[in-house]
Formats: sequence, structure tokens, C-alpha cells
Amino acid sequence: MTVNFQAPKGTRDFYPSDMAVRRYIEDIWRSVSVRHGFQEVDGPTFESLDLYKVKSGDEIISQLFSFVDRGERDLALRPEFTPTLARMVAQKAAGLPRPIKWFSIPRCYRAEQPQKGRLREFIQWNVDFIGDASERADRECLAVCVDALLEFGLTASDIRIGWNHRELFTKALCSTFVAPQRISNAYYILDRLQKYDVQARHALYQQQQCTELERENFDAIAAAVNSPQLLAAWMNSWPADVRDSINAFEQRLADKGLAEICRFDLSVVRGLAYYTGFVFEVIDAQGQNRAIAGGGRYDKLIEMFGGPAMPAVGFGMGDVVLEILLRQRNKLPANLMPPADVFVINALEDSAAADQLIAQLRRSQWNSEHSKIIRRGLNVQTSYRSTRNIGKLLQEASGCGARVAVILAAEEINRGMMKLKNLVDRTETDVAVPDVLNRIHALLTDSQAMV
Amino acid sequence: MTVNFQAPKGTRDFYPSDMAVRRYIEDIWRSVSVRHGFQEVDGPTFESLDLYKVKSGDEIISQLFSFVDRGERDLALRPEFTPTLARMVAQKAAGLPRPIKWFSIPRCYRAEQPQKGRLREFIQWNVDFIGDASERADRECLAVCVDALLEFGLTASDIRIGWNHRELFTKALCSTFVAPQRISNAYYILDRLQKYDVQARHALYQQQQCTELERENFDAIAAAVNSPQLLAAWMNSWPADVRDSINAFEQRLADKGLAEICRFDLSVVRGLAYYTGFVFEVIDAQGQNRAIAGGGRYDKLIEMFGGPAMPAVGFGMGDVVLEILLRQRNKLPANLMPPADVFVINALEDSAAADQLIAQLRRSQWNSEHSKIIRRGLNVQTSYRSTRNIGKLLQEASGCGARVAVILAAEEINRGMMKLKNLVDRTETDVAVPDVLNRIHALLTDSQAMV
Repeated sequence: MTVNFQAPKGTRDFYPSDMAVRRYIEDIWRSVSVRHGFQEVDGPTFESLDLYKVKSGDEIISQLFSFVDRGERDLALRPEFTPTLARMVAQKAAGLPRPIKWFSIPRCYRAEQPQKGRLREFIQWNVDFIGDASERADRECLAVCVDALLEFGLTASDIRIGWNHRELFTKALCSTFVAPQRISNAYYILDRLQKYDVQARHALYQQQQCTELERENFDAIAAAVNSPQLLAAWMNSWPADVRDSINAFEQRLADKGLAEICRFDLSVVRGLAYYTGFVFEVIDAQGQNRAIAGGGRYDKLIEMFGGPAMPAVGFGMGDVVLEILLRQRNKLPANLMPPADVFVINALEDSAAADQLIAQLRRSQWNSEHSKIIRRGLNVQTSYRSTRNIGKLLQEASGCGARVAVILAAEEINRGMMKLKNLVDRTETDVAVPDVLNRIHALLTDSQAMV
Repeated sequence: MTVNFQAPKGTRDFYPSDMAVRRYIEDIWRSVSVRHGFQEVDGPTFESLDLYKVKSGDEIISQLFSFVDRGERDLALRPEFTPTLARMVAQKAAGLPRPIKWFSIPRCYRAEQPQKGRLREFIQWNVDFIGDASERADRECLAVCVDALLEFGLTASDIRIGWNHRELFTKALCSTFVAPQRISNAYYILDRLQKYDVQARHALYQQQQCTELERENFDAIAAAVNSPQLLAAWMNSWPADVRDSINAFEQRLADKGLAEICRFDLSVVRGLAYYTGFVFEVIDAQGQNRAIAGGGRYDKLIEMFGGPAMPAVGFGMGDVVLEILLRQRNKLPANLMPPADVFVINALEDSAAADQLIAQLRRSQWNSEHSKIIRRGLNVQTSYRSTRNIGKLLQEASGCGARVAVILAAEEINRGMMKLKNLVDRTETDVAVPDVLNRIHALLTDSQAMV
């Protein structure tokens, strides 16, 4: 038996410092979702293999980790959450209060070659607003995405959000240079415009059998993507109602405070089959990384999974590219480990008194009139080293973020006292044993203002 | 294509109210772990199939969901976390500060027939204390387990913890009635004593070819398990040093405040190959459910996975039996959904002003001098119904737990005001638009004491 095991290819071990980063990311996703009125859901880690074919067809199978259970059912690890979401909504559609505002933070799996920013196992934040066909739902999804990015400390110099509207844009394309039967070719080309250089673009035109008119217009679009002037000029050829709708949507984004970070972007079209209206993508403003998030309106999906006709809009954001970006831009807080509240130093021969104090502190209700904070249990740490060198132990206490140290030493204990050290202002007091708990709570309350 | 999909057998969909329960359970596991000084870790959801054979042999394979990746590697969904933990410790043993105090909350998978309390997909809290061979580490693990159970509101009438010590008990058995070569038979029988009735027990004795002496003693143990008098009498025949060690350990549990809930229990021996010393099990005191948690000392395991010799002790607690127990004993809080802070009621034709206010509140920093609480962003909800009936909307506001409602109506807005309603004491005030944010923060701070 080999005993030199590694984590499987494309997966990660989360040691405490890695886990603290993951926890930080997930906590922001969760708290931002909740404050925008979304409710958390989750589903099984694996589903029927067939579930994944509904949306993506048979070609998805090669990208799945699939297996067979004892009942010979074909199952697969989820590559994304949307099919599970659609199934859950379809199954209980009649009984769910509307609109359905759900988020989830599932681990997902792709059986593909790992690359920078793409692993075989990753975590993806999903936010979905179901049962509301209005632009208000589109904007709400965008707002929760932007709010999370801001909460991570990312600014308009780090990221930008390109948005588009499949239905309006189709109308604009068809009324200017794209024949209706060429619309899927047009989207195929548009999806690649920004990723290809001039030479590759021309090969693409040839492959898609573009007319001269199409070539000229696609070149114009490619140029307009990063130029507000060219974009405005090119949009002048659009039907007035399409322009008005785009402008009105832009104004509503401004009302939500999203003007700086969001931009109408012709190159954002996202995969063909799926989206039916508004689409958006979060893009690294410095062009270093893959898309950080993406989503849009998918009004037909719930029906495809056997549910009623229900409009829906949503997006996904993975943890892998996000973490790379946060590291590159120095946006991860320096110390993400939860700090200790109290550090107990035992300088007695026996540890019974220290054990008792530690148990008491960890289970104490901290309900201070002054701060109105109710907290159950303090985070108490102690040293496992054999040293009784108080100076070294106080260093260890500060190292784990404790604001108070309690020292149990023979001299004080014999007088019925323990020594309390405020590690913020470095003052010391001897406190009678029965008062220790209250004094620690008071010290922690006072020092809250200082941290 | 069938469009009537269900969650796979033995798995669960977590709709918002189910997810709130899962979040409640995981949050208590996490906060209790942290305050006892444990650090969170995690690993991949799947590992090399071979990793699971190290501890459990080939027979584990039939209980695994296994599959093959593109590189023809045999992989399996984790049935438990311990092999991953051992691999992670073994891989970085030299670089990890000791002792290693880790916890994790992984989802795990078993390819077996679902039963009450046993699903194919479940969540298991793992707590491990590695690198410390002392009884102190044993007691710390037990204390974190008990603390979580108390935090869930469970008491000595709901659960009890049976503990034993494999090494000491082996010594006691061998010095009284078990021949050394019969020790594994003895444990095989002891593990089943409490689960079998008299008839099944006698069949077991026959199958294990027990001597008359063994039969008498196993019967005496079975009777002593639930009788402190019989236990004390039977323990009188043990070597004095074994009895002293057991009594000393019991005293230290009492020092930690664990006397009421923990009991030395001869019937707790746990699987043979794995544990080397202290073992314990959390048992339903009313005998209705399977074991809620279990663990013990496993000093040889890290070595088996290629690491250095490192003593270790730990336990696991699954979410499935725990949730059943909490429901049976009415210990789940009534409403676990995160409450809203503010509910915005828009009675204007246009929603731009309401949208702006909502965005502002969700992104506001709430840094009150008075409370010293710093919170980023308020949980703001609003109605998606078409009604402008303020009474109905205020009901909706109270229903989602909001403590403050802001009403945007033409009459007030025309005077540059919004109406604030304190939903705790039902008072109303008109507030000038620029002051709304501060007034809401102040109202929320004041109402904190009342909820």
C-alpha cells in the first residue's frame, strides 16, 4: 500500500489559513445575499446524469464526473447549480411564495483539464430571482453582485461590469445589418470578438461566411466596445425604441448607484441557448483574469425542467478567479483567523483551576448592559507549551489576537486572586477569583472600541 | 426527455427553511469549535479510492461512491473526513505548529441503503486534537462536544455520554476473566451487549465459543452498564491502578463541569482496529435514536498515512440524527430565517427614490458610538406585491422580522420627508430625507435591547 497520498488533481486542501480565506469569501457572499433579501438554499452534491442534459445536451457528459449507484442509476457530480435550482423550483412551484429570491454557495465539479482560474472542484455563489419578468429583478441581481464586489474592496479600477440585452440587441442587429437567419452566427462571432486578434477575427468571418456588410459592422462593433464615442455613433443607427430602452435601463442603474462600475457592452452576449434578455459579465478591468462572474435572464428554463412558465434572472461567481484577483490586488485582509478573546496562562503546578476557568469562560453568557451585545461563549485559548515563562506566554497570547490574558500564579491564587492583563493598553490588575468572569467581560466590552 | 426529476435517493433538497436549520446547526458547530481554540480545515470532496483502504481495508469499497477520472484514476466521494485529515497532517507534519487543533464540517457520502438517521449524503462535524498524548487532549475533545450539545439546548435528560478507555479496559478484562488471545472476541461481544436481547446474546456467546466464566462475566457487565452499584461492585475486582486511573479521569471531567452528562460506560468500546485509548459515544438518553456522535483516541493513524508518529484524539457528529433529535425534543428555535432590519414601503408611482434608499441602506456602514457595534449593510426587504395598502404592507414588514419600516408616500415626499415606523413599539415619525439613514440606525440600535 502506497502511503504517499496527494489531493486529487484539480482539487484543493484547505489548511487553516486557506480555509480562513474561503470562509471570508463565503461569509461576504452570504451576508450580502441576505441583506438584499435572498434566502439560502442548497441541493444534493450529485444529481441524475439526465438532469444535466436538459439544459446542455449530451455534450455536457464529457465534462462531468459521473458514476453509477447500487440501483444502477446514472449520477453525476454537479458542474453548476442551475439545473438543481430549476428542478427544486419546478418540483414545488405551486407552494413557493413569489417572487423566489434564492442564493446558494455550492461546491461544483468539472472533469476538465485544470488551468489557472479553473479547477476540477470549486465553489460557486449563485443568486437567482425567479417569478419576476421586470427589469427591476435584473437590476436587483446586478446590485447584489456589485455590492459583494465592493465589500471585497474591489473598485472600478479593478473590475468593470459589461451588460447587454439579448432581446434588444437582436432587434438592433436585425434592423441594421444582420439577416434574421444569420442571428446565431452573429452571436457566435460577437462572443469571440474581444478574445480574438485581427487575424483570428478575419479567419472567423471567413469560417462563418460573413458578407462584406457583416464584416464592416463587426469590425465597427469591435472598435466601439472600448470607445464611448464610437459606440454612441454606431447606436445612432439603431431603432429609437431600442436606444430608449437601453438608456432607460442605464439610468435605473445610475439610480442604484451602479453607474461608475457598469457599462453597456456589445461584446457581452454569453452562450446562445440559455439567456433570453439582460446579460452581464464581471470583467477584470486590467485584463489579467478570466471573467469573475456572469449571468442574465433565462425566462424559459424552469419550464424546461417541468415547472410552470416562470421568468428568472440570476448569476454565478466562482471562488477561484475571485481569490486570485483579491490576492493580485492586495484586497485580502492580513489576518483572517478568528481572534481569541481571552488567553489563559497557567503558572500553577496543577491545571484544575485553569481548566475550570477556561470551561466557564467558553460557556459564559456575555450580556453587558453597556454594549447591548449578547454573546454566548468567549473564544478562549491557552498554551500547550511546557514553559512557565510569563513573558513568552504573553507573546503567544498577543499572537492569537487575545485582548485579555488571565494569569494563574501561586502568589495571587494564595491570596484568592488572579492577575488580569489588558493586552490592548498593557495594564494589569489583580482580581478576586469570584469577580474574574465579570471583569473579563467588562474589559472586553471596553476594548471593543479600540480594535 | 423525462422532465419529472427528483433528488437522488438518500439525498436532500435544502429549501430555505431546511437550509436555515442546516445553517443553525453548522453555525453552532463552528462557533463552539472556534471558542475552544480549534481551527477550521477542509479537503477535497473526493480522494483516491486507495486512501480509503488504508484505514478500513478493501471492504470499504462497496460502501463508497467511486468513479474514474479522465486520467483513469480511481476516486471516491469521501465517506468520512478522517483519511483526508490524516493525509493533510502527514503531508505537512513538519511545518505545522503543534498541537494541531482542527475542526471541519464536510459533506460525506455513503453508498448504502438509506434508513432513519442514515442518508447517502450527510454533513459531519469533525473535531481533532493531534500531537498531544495526554488525557488533557481527550478531555478537551469531550468538552467541545458537550459544549455544542448544551448550546443546542440538549440536557442530561436528552443525551448522555458514555466513555471508556480501551487500554485500561483491556487491562481490567485480562486481569479478571478474558484470556489475552480472546480479547478481540471480548470486544466483539461487548460492542453488541447493549444492542442484543437475552436470546440474541446467548446465540452470540455460542457463536463466539464463550466459556462459562466468560458468559457469567458478560452477563454481569450487561447488568452493570445501567447500574452504578453493580458497576462499582464489579470494578472492585479490577487492578487498583486501573480503577485509580478511571476515577482520576472522572474527577477531571467533573472539574470541567462534565460530571452530570458523562458516565463511564463498559458497553462503549467502538470498532476494534481504530481506537487506542479513551473512547466515547453520545447516546440518546431516551433510547430512541442511533448514536449522535462518537470518537476517541487513535494514536497510530497518522503513521498509517505516511506521517510521523503522532498521538491524536477526535470525534465526529452527523447532522441527520442530531436534527431528528432536536426536532423530537422541540429544541429547534421557531424561526431560524435571518430577520430583516428595515422594510421599505413604496407608495409612490415611481420607484426610483425607493430604489435609491434601499441601495443606500444595504451598503451603509452602521457605526454607532452608543453601541460600539460596527455593521456593514442592513438587511433590507421590500414588497413585490402590486398593492399600495399600507396596512397590509406593514403586516408583511412585521412578518419578515423588520424592526423599522420606511414609508415613501406622496404627501410626505412632497414636504421632503419620509415616514419611519418603529415596528417594535408601533410609534411613527416623519423624518427629513437627508436624516433618514441616521434615524434608522439610531432606531435599530435602540430596539436591539428590546428583542
